[in-house]
Amino acid sequence: MSRQMVRPGGRSARVQASVHAAVHELASEVGRAALTVPLVAQRAGVTPSTIYRRWGDLQELLSDVAVMRLRPDTAPGDHGSLASDLTAWAEQFLDEMAHPAGRAYIRDALLGDPDGSNAGQCSAYAADQITFILTRAAERGERTPDVETVVDRVVAPMMYRILFRPDGLDAAYARRLVAELLDPSDPSDPNGQNGPRDPSDPSGPTGP
Amino acid sequence: MSRQMVRPGGRSARVQASVHAAVHELASEVGRAALTVPLVAQRAGVTPSTIYRRWGDLQELLSDVAVMRLRPDTAPGDHGSLASDLTAWAEQFLDEMAHPAGRAYIRDALLGDPDGSNAGQCSAYAADQITFILTRAAERGERTPDVETVVDRVVAPMMYRILFRPDGLDAAYARRLVAELLDPSDPSDPNGQNGPRDPSDPSGPTGP
Repeated sequence: MSRQMVRPGGRSARVQASVHAAVHELASEVGRAALTVPLVAQRAGVTPSTIYRRWGDLQELLSDVAVMRLRPDTAPGDHGSLASDLTAWAEQFLDEMAHPAGRAYIRDALLGDPDGSNAGQCSAYAADQITFILTRAAERGERTPDVETVVDRVVAPMMYRILFRPDGLDAAYARRLVAELLDPSDPSDPNGQNGPRDPSDPSGPTGP
Repeated sequence: MSRQMVRPGGRSARVQASVHAAVHELASEVGRAALTVPLVAQRAGVTPSTIYRRWGDLQELLSDVAVMRLRPDTAPGDHGSLASDLTAWAEQFLDEMAHPAGRAYIRDALLGDPDGSNAGQCSAYAADQITFILTRAAERGERTPDVETVVDRVVAPMMYRILFRPDGLDAAYARRLVAELLDPSDPSDPNGQNGPRDPSDPSGPTGP
């Protein structure tokens, strides 16, 4: 994130805001594949060298823009219980990330990210949202898993499949991940080893 | 994989082999950042237009090369039980993928992959290895989870953390994922909800 670590306000913040806005506008007008640094600079009213100096190259600029777009803008909703809060969050996360725009942002965030800080920021956003949900559940007196376990059991499978194995992803998959996390002793599967992933089960991703 | 679907043997296969070899040689001589299509073409003894026609651009070529390098070259070892086979496989997978060369191949495979087929191939390699392990275990008479569950519970967390949350990844993490998959009723954690992820536990990834 070093390139984004700029003082709030002032010229630096105005340049960032106008360059990010230029990327959004141009991406919808001419498509992302047609974006160039000179084109973005012209729209933003800055010189190309300002962009190169601050972001390095177009890929790094797109990565920063993607991370900004992936930042959640609201706290997770309160549905009264850990299971329902986490289920609603996971469904929304999968819906946003598996959407073509979400996939494009995830790819951009990973690509122009030589030191991995933008990918780390994406993961931190998810972990922060989960921590919020777990803290609220603990305050209700509910027993909660720890945040890293939720990352491993709910976030990681969704992101892995979005990137590597996207067939069959749907809200039922997000719900099942949460259900298996919170109730590994599902009566239909006394040992908790087999998820309901019969190959004929239309709700389950089967992958290539 | 459409660009790779060429007839074995013949000029097409020779071109692929010499271009892939040129990428490897040049990457070690001048570094990946300095690779260009004309440079690769010159070393491979083909024209740049041959490369553009077949691979589209450098990024797609690097993606194809990465997938070839990520292909396992041996079947998973037989250590006598499902737990030991899967543990050994997961440790080796994490070691290879979290290594700087492995991370670079994963990134390359994802980047120059407009239709997602190379990422799907990477995932299929892992699923094939797991299927091999599970089939052998079932033949021994062992109870086995299904392959998609192993992908969700072992492969996905490792790949997610390699890409998004790499701090603290080590062999103990791979072993723990397998142990929690095969024995969710670990006596140290009767409800199977909390992995041994105390923040002070040096074996556990804590993320940013």
